[in-house]
Amino acid sequence: MPVRVGVIGAGWIGKEHIRRLTDTVTGARVTAVTDIDAARAEEAAIPAGARVLPDGAALIGAADVDAVLVTSWGPTHAEHVLNALAAAKPVFCEKPLATTAEDCLRIVEAETALGRRLVQVGFMRRYDAGYRQVKQVIDAGRIGEPLIVHCAHRNPAVPESYTSAMAALDTAVHEIDVLRWLLDDEIVSAQVVTPRATSRRFAHLRDPQIMLFETARGVRVDLEVFVNCRYGYDIQCEVVGEEGLVRLPDPASAGVRTAGQHSTEVLTDWTERFAAAFDTEFREWIAGIAAGTEPTGPSAWDGYAATVITSATVEALESGDVVATGLKPKPALYGGAA
Amino acid sequence: MPVRVGVIGAGWIGKEHIRRLTDTVTGARVTAVTDIDAARAEEAAIPAGARVLPDGAALIGAADVDAVLVTSWGPTHAEHVLNALAAAKPVFCEKPLATTAEDCLRIVEAETALGRRLVQVGFMRRYDAGYRQVKQVIDAGRIGEPLIVHCAHRNPAVPESYTSAMAALDTAVHEIDVLRWLLDDEIVSAQVVTPRATSRRFAHLRDPQIMLFETARGVRVDLEVFVNCRYGYDIQCEVVGEEGLVRLPDPASAGVRTAGQHSTEVLTDWTERFAAAFDTEFREWIAGIAAGTEPTGPSAWDGYAATVITSATVEALESGDVVATGLKPKPALYGGAA
Amino acid sequence: MPVRVGVIGAGWIGKEHIRRLTDTVTGARVTAVTDIDAARAEEAAIPAGARVLPDGAALIGAADVDAVLVTSWGPTHAEHVLNALAAAKPVFCEKPLATTAEDCLRIVEAETALGRRLVQVGFMRRYDAGYRQVKQVIDAGRIGEPLIVHCAHRNPAVPESYTSAMAALDTAVHEIDVLRWLLDDEIVSAQVVTPRATSRRFAHLRDPQIMLFETARGVRVDLEVFVNCRYGYDIQCEVVGEEGLVRLPDPASAGVRTAGQHSTEVLTDWTERFAAAFDTEFREWIAGIAAGTEPTGPSAWDGYAATVITSATVEALESGDVVATGLKPKPALYGGAA
Amino acid sequence: MPVRVGVIGAGWIGKEHIRRLTDTVTGARVTAVTDIDAARAEEAAIPAGARVLPDGAALIGAADVDAVLVTSWGPTHAEHVLNALAAAKPVFCEKPLATTAEDCLRIVEAETALGRRLVQVGFMRRYDAGYRQVKQVIDAGRIGEPLIVHCAHRNPAVPESYTSAMAALDTAVHEIDVLRWLLDDEIVSAQVVTPRATSRRFAHLRDPQIMLFETARGVRVDLEVFVNCRYGYDIQCEVVGEEGLVRLPDPASAGVRTAGQHSTEVLTDWTERFAAAFDTEFREWIAGIAAGTEPTGPSAWDGYAATVITSATVEALESGDVVATGLKPKPALYGGAA
Repeated sequence: MPVRVGVIGAGWIGKEHIRRLTDTVTGARVTAVTDIDAARAEEAAIPAGARVLPDGAALIGAADVDAVLVTSWGPTHAEHVLNALAAAKPVFCEKPLATTAEDCLRIVEAETALGRRLVQVGFMRRYDAGYRQVKQVIDAGRIGEPLIVHCAHRNPAVPESYTSAMAALDTAVHEIDVLRWLLDDEIVSAQVVTPRATSRRFAHLRDPQIMLFETARGVRVDLEVFVNCRYGYDIQCEVVGEEGLVRLPDPASAGVRTAGQHSTEVLTDWTERFAAAFDTEFREWIAGIAAGTEPTGPSAWDGYAATVITSATVEALESGDVVATGLKPKPALYGGAA
Repeated sequence: MPVRVGVIGAGWIGKEHIRRLTDTVTGARVTAVTDIDAARAEEAAIPAGARVLPDGAALIGAADVDAVLVTSWGPTHAEHVLNALAAAKPVFCEKPLATTAEDCLRIVEAETALGRRLVQVGFMRRYDAGYRQVKQVIDAGRIGEPLIVHCAHRNPAVPESYTSAMAALDTAVHEIDVLRWLLDDEIVSAQVVTPRATSRRFAHLRDPQIMLFETARGVRVDLEVFVNCRYGYDIQCEVVGEEGLVRLPDPASAGVRTAGQHSTEVLTDWTERFAAAFDTEFREWIAGIAAGTEPTGPSAWDGYAATVITSATVEALESGDVVATGLKPKPALYGGAA
Repeated sequence: MPVRVGVIGAGWIGKEHIRRLTDTVTGARVTAVTDIDAARAEEAAIPAGARVLPDGAALIGAADVDAVLVTSWGPTHAEHVLNALAAAKPVFCEKPLATTAEDCLRIVEAETALGRRLVQVGFMRRYDAGYRQVKQVIDAGRIGEPLIVHCAHRNPAVPESYTSAMAALDTAVHEIDVLRWLLDDEIVSAQVVTPRATSRRFAHLRDPQIMLFETARGVRVDLEVFVNCRYGYDIQCEVVGEEGLVRLPDPASAGVRTAGQHSTEVLTDWTERFAAAFDTEFREWIAGIAAGTEPTGPSAWDGYAATVITSATVEALESGDVVATGLKPKPALYGGAA
Repeated sequence: MPVRVGVIGAGWIGKEHIRRLTDTVTGARVTAVTDIDAARAEEAAIPAGARVLPDGAALIGAADVDAVLVTSWGPTHAEHVLNALAAAKPVFCEKPLATTAEDCLRIVEAETALGRRLVQVGFMRRYDAGYRQVKQVIDAGRIGEPLIVHCAHRNPAVPESYTSAMAALDTAVHEIDVLRWLLDDEIVSAQVVTPRATSRRFAHLRDPQIMLFETARGVRVDLEVFVNCRYGYDIQCEVVGEEGLVRLPDPASAGVRTAGQHSTEVLTDWTERFAAAFDTEFREWIAGIAAGTEPTGPSAWDGYAATVITSATVEALESGDVVATGLKPKPALYGGAA
């Protein structure tokens, strides 16, 4: 009996996940699709053999929808997730969980009131084989207590619509989530320093940026975000501990020697970098639903934290100051003391 | 409508592939299982929701079996594959296609008579991302015409039942297939030179061995087979051409610095090394059947060639001589001139 | 006719350089040694066949001393360098040039008054083959305009006498010099953020530290200084530019595969890391003197800049603020506009 | 008191070593030079401040010559080395020690009769830091007993005068020496297999070649010699033992990421690859003479073995057979039982 998934939002990422649930992940079937653009919903539904429903509420309420996937426009996420919680259906929400801390908290409160986890947020890096190796090394105590993390997140180029704030909201948000998970620690402050901007791209954009985070246990993170680095899509992460360090591996690539150079490929298309992580993310999500267990992936709380921390980072960029993230106490449902 | 697969042989690899077709590959369903040990068949069938059939012939003839997977004991392969051809059903046969050149040729002839390809042989390396990168580099002409290939196939240890001949028949057979594919060339002779044997293992065994192959176009291959190397499962392949070289990547592994060493992991469990390749192999096989196209993987001809070349390699080991492989001309069905 | 060198200061580094000038560098001879501890001077002088002189002034004035090497206690450097300038003799001064900005400026003024360069300061990294490769890549324009530099300077352990301020004064000073040279740019501000301190070492010490520098052209540098990292002596430097990046190579080390690990050595003794750089530094210094040309190595101005910038960094550590370095305008003698 | 060296042969390598002994190695002085071309001798002598002598005999006999360096044409080596032995003067002879096994044996016999070592042969790889690391790993038992060695010796291109036999005589001879030293073992047979020749170079040349050696203890070596590989000067060596393997490091090179590629440099000029090894080789040779100790570098016996083994390899190339090297028993002077 496959898990029947209803998908809200049939844009690029929605279609990509419909394809994934249909062709790559076993045990799932997309049964319903909705989108504000009905033609787009239709187009996405056909290859999956799904029907089109008029809106999110109808989809969430449908009898043939066991679980909900939210891939619509960010500002609509909160409403759909709250509706899914009200219907007590598992819901996977692409980042962000909600665009404001208040909306995130409403979701956290609704889920806490329910008393069990139904929400998972789409931070796929926790499913990347390389990051999992890094976490294993840390958790096994091989490098001792973490003290510092050095990260870089580089994209070859972004479109003109990309703003300086998106460096935190859309780009660094992935590191923010994965670091909280790697370190099992919370980010308490953010600062941003801005190198001279690259001249190769739009004048309005602060690019690159160096973000500095501090965690509750005093770990310091420096994160270079450089979204017009031209040479490739390159994700770096090095955790330095009291006994040693561990470094995220680059993707395996055949070495070629020609014309006085030994070279390996650097990916330029980001979808290749985390394609396997996306597959694993959905495989584990579906397996959990089929087994009737609570999701183990990024929680509503993680979604809240990401929104708060990225907002603080944007404020830090704009003010030049160190900005405290001011996260609320974590409820017991998410492993906290509150 | 999933492709309904019947599985002949429910040993370790049979169970592994049943699990793969059930849990990992979409579009397939295992509907029938058979094994000479009925209890073992039962045990393998249950998790897949398949029924048990009395023997291979019954399974191949079953109406709810669209395609056949042969994972039984090697000497029985030929019979099952020939039966599947007689029933005009697609058949995936784990290596070897057959244990004698004669039996392989009977299959090739049967398929040739049929006039279309139905047989695929289970050489999974062609589906490994690293080997595919190597092939892309060669095919793009980046290293020029290949002249030499250096390979190593190392296992940490083998059981006492492993014989010196198995170094070719069971171990080097993977390189033999993948090299023929990488180079799009045929192996015409084999020689084996034997270093002093490792003292860390069974006295009866010639381990390591260095196999030397020559191809029709004059490429020379040296292949170290060392199945008790202790340190890990390690597959190396370097192709040297007129303009440069390309090297198979090691699996990506987090780098760790502690105690005066920078280290990455070397796999010790071979099933990890090619797990993704097995998945891709079956995903592409099932997709082809669903689409009604002929298989693009290793053919009956490739299975024949592998059996002939490994036999010649065993003869070379035993005689100390250079042994010609003496392959028949390749039929047109497999891209040959015959 | 070898260059006759007089050495002021016969401690560890003085003896090391006497050995280097005697055994490794051709074209030089140590003819005189002085030290506040006459026995130590004697001990250092004997293997070089040099004589012992009572003090720096006598040594600088000696007829058989063509060039002066200052390796005495830091606070005495300025006096010896000024004396050498007064005597118009080439002088190589180990870092720091002087312990105060004022003393450094007195040297700069004396040399400027003289109208030609006689002073070289002992920053050996500019002579390291790896850093020279990095500079070549930058200067050739291969990575475009530099925007960011990520550095790490890690030592396995330091003695209890090491203070938090020494992280800048003694350790980061090497990166400060080499970065100014690599980028051909000036450091205009410093900030220090402090991760939780390692628990594996002295409680008084802020270790590790992350230093943040900004250059006149807007390049941002983050430098991790971690002097009790335990695992090794490890120097990292990565320069990110508008078109790509370049990374300082690790020292070449034989790769070993045993017991499930591929490992290379990380040096634990810092003297090995830059031994060849020290040799090249002195070889080029001696060759320049023999040729009668001005030194091309780190100048008195570089020594002044290092002292000012490290002082600002200490102030930044103590205050938590961003501290402007406030360097004076660079005189024309050193390539500046002043 | 510097060691006074007389140099016989002022061609490219002679001049290079004169420069090395003059400018790079301390404790030596070139006092006399001779060459069949007196003008060339003059040109080489001037920068070293040496005088020109009419011939080798005069040079060896000169009172101001403590040690002799033979860098003349190969066929003349034996005579000069024998003369130096007759004069009881230390002699460094560039490879080959002599062009025939008979002449090598005459030198061995002369030295044995003398009862102490005076001859060193110019195999510089033993002085390369990378090979020394490999030897340390082997000697420390980290990889267990060696069983197999994989080597490659690639040059970007050779001139038309290079013959197929020179692949052994001039090129592989370096591996032959360094392997005997790394393994502390003797090579007892040689075989050569020839891949298709590269089409990018002279039709007369068998290039590449794969040489196969067996040692007395049963280690098997495969050595690819490819002297027109175009892409670079690339030396590879991997020793596989009962417990693991060790691999010669590539020269350290700054990593550059641009345009979708991570690349490091492959040397194209062989003189760079072993420049430091040449320096160390002469530094140790001179230091030994100054100390009055016997040379620890490659001996006359090693020179004899190299000549015999390379001759056998040429014979193997021409005949296609496995050729026994048939080395004489090693005299006690060289650590043997004879």
